[in-house]
Amino acid sequence: MPEKVGSQTIVFQNDVCISSYAAVVGAKEGEGPLGNGFDKVYNDELVGEDSFEKAESRLQTTAVQTAIKKSGMTEDQIDYMFAGDLLNQCIGSAYGLKDFAIPFLGLYGACSTMALSLALASLFVESGVAKHTIAVTSSHFCSAERQFRFPLEYGGQRTPTAQWTVTGSGAAVVSCGKNGPRINAITFGKINDLGVKDINNMGAAMSPAAAETIKAFLDDTNTSPKDYDLILTGDLGKVGSDLLHELLLKDNISIAENHNDCGLMIFDLEGQDVHAGGSGCGCSASVLCSKILNEFKSGKYKNILFCATGALMSPTSTMQGQSIPSIAHLVNIVK
Amino acid sequence: MPEKVGSQTIVFQNDVCISSYAAVVGAKEGEGPLGNGFDKVYNDELVGEDSFEKAESRLQTTAVQTAIKKSGMTEDQIDYMFAGDLLNQCIGSAYGLKDFAIPFLGLYGACSTMALSLALASLFVESGVAKHTIAVTSSHFCSAERQFRFPLEYGGQRTPTAQWTVTGSGAAVVSCGKNGPRINAITFGKINDLGVKDINNMGAAMSPAAAETIKAFLDDTNTSPKDYDLILTGDLGKVGSDLLHELLLKDNISIAENHNDCGLMIFDLEGQDVHAGGSGCGCSASVLCSKILNEFKSGKYKNILFCATGALMSPTSTMQGQSIPSIAHLVNIVK
Repeated sequence: MPEKVGSQTIVFQNDVCISSYAAVVGAKEGEGPLGNGFDKVYNDELVGEDSFEKAESRLQTTAVQTAIKKSGMTEDQIDYMFAGDLLNQCIGSAYGLKDFAIPFLGLYGACSTMALSLALASLFVESGVAKHTIAVTSSHFCSAERQFRFPLEYGGQRTPTAQWTVTGSGAAVVSCGKNGPRINAITFGKINDLGVKDINNMGAAMSPAAAETIKAFLDDTNTSPKDYDLILTGDLGKVGSDLLHELLLKDNISIAENHNDCGLMIFDLEGQDVHAGGSGCGCSASVLCSKILNEFKSGKYKNILFCATGALMSPTSTMQGQSIPSIAHLVNIVK
Repeated sequence: MPEKVGSQTIVFQNDVCISSYAAVVGAKEGEGPLGNGFDKVYNDELVGEDSFEKAESRLQTTAVQTAIKKSGMTEDQIDYMFAGDLLNQCIGSAYGLKDFAIPFLGLYGACSTMALSLALASLFVESGVAKHTIAVTSSHFCSAERQFRFPLEYGGQRTPTAQWTVTGSGAAVVSCGKNGPRINAITFGKINDLGVKDINNMGAAMSPAAAETIKAFLDDTNTSPKDYDLILTGDLGKVGSDLLHELLLKDNISIAENHNDCGLMIFDLEGQDVHAGGSGCGCSASVLCSKILNEFKSGKYKNILFCATGALMSPTSTMQGQSIPSIAHLVNIVK
């Protein structure tokens, strides 16, 4: 039985592991520093489809198919799937996963969704109601740009604080047993809103949520940053990461030595013209489901915190002058 | 510990109950047949706000505040909240709930979301990781019309198969113990797509999902429709309800005698010009959290199935010629 500790953390008692995973990405991500760790790189931004939205769905389909195939299982062995994306009405997930005959739980946590889906997928296994579940999210630069910002044809300028939405999808199969890195604990975050309204500075809006969730986890488990090989946020980028360090230092928590951010890892910030780094549901998902989980196999990581962050605004709420609420969920992964 | 039975149903072993609930609605819903069962009826469609989206958020805020107040508890006793709505990026929930200091799990299941949120809220209590959780969803006629169809000022005609989005929100507090109707079992549905493309006929698109989930539940639990006082779908409306009966009859399952639909209950179909009935995340939520749960107190209902249905398309997927995937989740509520 899972056990709640402290204010908002759930510690697992059973063996719950990530038994398989896959990440598929676009060309720019393939050219980045993590390029050779992905399962598939699509050089065609339409991924063989006739719209960017269909292309994003195809990324999810492929990530799930690949993760299941690598697990050595078949689709009918997966009990539940948990998915989400950034598109209106989450059509990346609905259309990408509609042909799998697996009970589907749709989630929305903006860019925090991979941590949300992985946490729920794990909890179902821990609770004994599932033997195998799958967690998946996606994003696509082109579908995100035209939905959240401008049509690509417009050629809008980007501010230095802006992040580049990752074209990619990551999927993780969660299973009972010890056949892979284990999920040890999960923390669901609260919505946080410090009043940031700059839609071109998501990192600033999301950093307070990351700080709050990381602090809650450390307090709940009575641990400190040095207990972890890596504290990985998903996708604060450069601006948000710096702010996160500052915010946590106010509580005398220093993470500078072992913190990294999926948005800083997936692109070469100097060479790839992505300004403050990567973002999107597919950013943390594809980084986790390639480089990070691979490093558990290599032995580099034994105990990490994966804390994905999401900005919960929409273009409509922004046009109506509202600030940007944000949230962060956390998953503790151990060898 | 919860137990999985059959292909996709989870049966609870502990006492998990709906200890409190509340529903708040707009003027048209207040004038309907269920009008006197709601906790609050707003005659101002803006609910004191300056936009329809903010009004929808306010409905969620009020529903949650009222449900918590009626429970006799305070906000800090609620361990987790589960919420969703129809607006792009689910801003109805994010802005409506951002001031509650409660860990937040955002969901998207279109109009099925109340069953999804109630099922997850219950499972957290059943699994022992929460003592009290809250499930809430909302919709608003005006925010939905301008997002999914036309600006109200355009005065677009509606087809006879179209449904009227409910302005309302329903919230349920789920607790361990026997202090209210109990949750006995839950079934998470699979995505279903029979190729319906008519965006003005959601009932037709969603009925196959309802049929599949109801059949899965009956098969998994080895029960038949006559075992239940009420099989309540959320919001197939008139067209979809008739199709659901037809589809289930093909499997020799007759629900005509004890089936009703939230979309058929909330409005007077003849007198209120709503065509095929009500719809929206707020429809099944506000009907469940008023009339239906009240009838458990009166003793009319002892064992019901609540099966909310959702159409997972977006205006973008429709414009790109895609069909409408749908889903239905089910919650078995007993005295």
